[in-house]
Amino acid sequence: TIVALMTTRNESTATSASLSGRVVTITAGPTREPLDPVRYLSNHSSGKMGFALAAAAARHGAEVHLISGPVTLPTPVGVTRHDITTAQEMSDTARQLAKESDVFIGCAAVADYRAANVATHKIKKQANRDGMTLSLVKNPDIIADVGGMTEHRPFVVGFAAETRNLEHHARDKLERKGLDMIVANDVSLEGLGFGADQNAALILWRPDATTPLQRRELPARDKAALAETIIGLIIERLMTSNDSKQTP
Amino acid sequence: TIVALMTTRNESTATSASLSGRVVTITAGPTREPLDPVRYLSNHSSGKMGFALAAAAARHGAEVHLISGPVTLPTPVGVTRHDITTAQEMSDTARQLAKESDVFIGCAAVADYRAANVATHKIKKQANRDGMTLSLVKNPDIIADVGGMTEHRPFVVGFAAETRNLEHHARDKLERKGLDMIVANDVSLEGLGFGADQNAALILWRPDATTPLQRRELPARDKAALAETIIGLIIERLMTSNDSKQTP
Repeated sequence: TIVALMTTRNESTATSASLSGRVVTITAGPTREPLDPVRYLSNHSSGKMGFALAAAAARHGAEVHLISGPVTLPTPVGVTRHDITTAQEMSDTARQLAKESDVFIGCAAVADYRAANVATHKIKKQANRDGMTLSLVKNPDIIADVGGMTEHRPFVVGFAAETRNLEHHARDKLERKGLDMIVANDVSLEGLGFGADQNAALILWRPDATTPLQRRELPARDKAALAETIIGLIIERLMTSNDSKQTP
Repeated sequence: TIVALMTTRNESTATSASLSGRVVTITAGPTREPLDPVRYLSNHSSGKMGFALAAAAARHGAEVHLISGPVTLPTPVGVTRHDITTAQEMSDTARQLAKESDVFIGCAAVADYRAANVATHKIKKQANRDGMTLSLVKNPDIIADVGGMTEHRPFVVGFAAETRNLEHHARDKLERKGLDMIVANDVSLEGLGFGADQNAALILWRPDATTPLQRRELPARDKAALAETIIGLIIERLMTSNDSKQTP
């Protein structure tokens, strides 16, 4: 039992050098899109999953860059943090870092749209108007931009937070955005996903251009444990692709 | 100097019974208006000012109800907290409590508008559309509803967070919403207002129907100190109005 205990401890706090010399960039948390100096559009992402991935990648020896929206989480040990507010700021930082990264993980819940015009002063409520319309324009699609890179393209992992048709949306997003792997989770399930400490996930990836998609379904577990599994799968993919490059 | 020190300490942690037997209801923090299960409209209110007011009112012996939007602050000692998310929920709770309150302080940054339709499932981005319009409808005007009460009307204190024309907007809001007192602050000033620990304020109130508005300008200070000053002014108003009732 002593050996068993030691093995367990060894696995849970595992440090390895399997990502030594690799640069991993991760986006995390929500973005906030201002409407005026006091109001904004945002979403319920807590950043926990992205921060757990950053911690796991750092434990495996990677140089980790974490691009984070406004969250209230401490920076994991050994991780370089880049704080941003809007999707445009996240995109600018991500484009810079992606070129120098071996792995890019888009875990942030990036706002799809921002206000067409951001008011300089607080918008006053109009007493005579019962409603108003807000004009929104599309934000940059960060993960699709990285997925579509033609030079120095990293291994690209996306996330899909869905409330229905999980696998359908995940397959569609992986193809459409040119991803190498996607982690999909159902955010409508009680106690999982946004803000929660646990997550269940369906992971899809394509071993090579001619092989059909592989899938792995992971039941609910701590975000730290899920992060460890995801980083493990990414390491496997990196090693396989290195092998195939070395033995043509 | 020992006496001076003791006086200082006595003032800063002052407990008095001047609000004993009085019910004070305070709204605090932002509201969040959902667009779909993951997205929402909100604002930068941290809740600090409202929580400081609740703590000050409790120290003066009041029965305090604090209606709070989503914030990350601990409940002050001796305060009953009512957690809400949307403006409609805040309005429902406020209408109930206002009838039984002697003082109502609207310190929350209530969203003026909410989505006309809240989507049950996550809204998918339309690949073929560069923009979208969001239809918003007006939320209940909580402070105006309480200000307009004709029976069991409490003493009503509003807040005005502005980025320009501070006094003009404050006077207008006090008149239009039927308030007894208004605390106005300029949220465009660096290090003051939303999220900050300090606040400067302009306080306006009308001693009685025939007297012109009184004004008091308070330079930047801790939100706790500002709260103490505001509660002190409210106690003065309550005592004066009691006196005038007793001596017609």
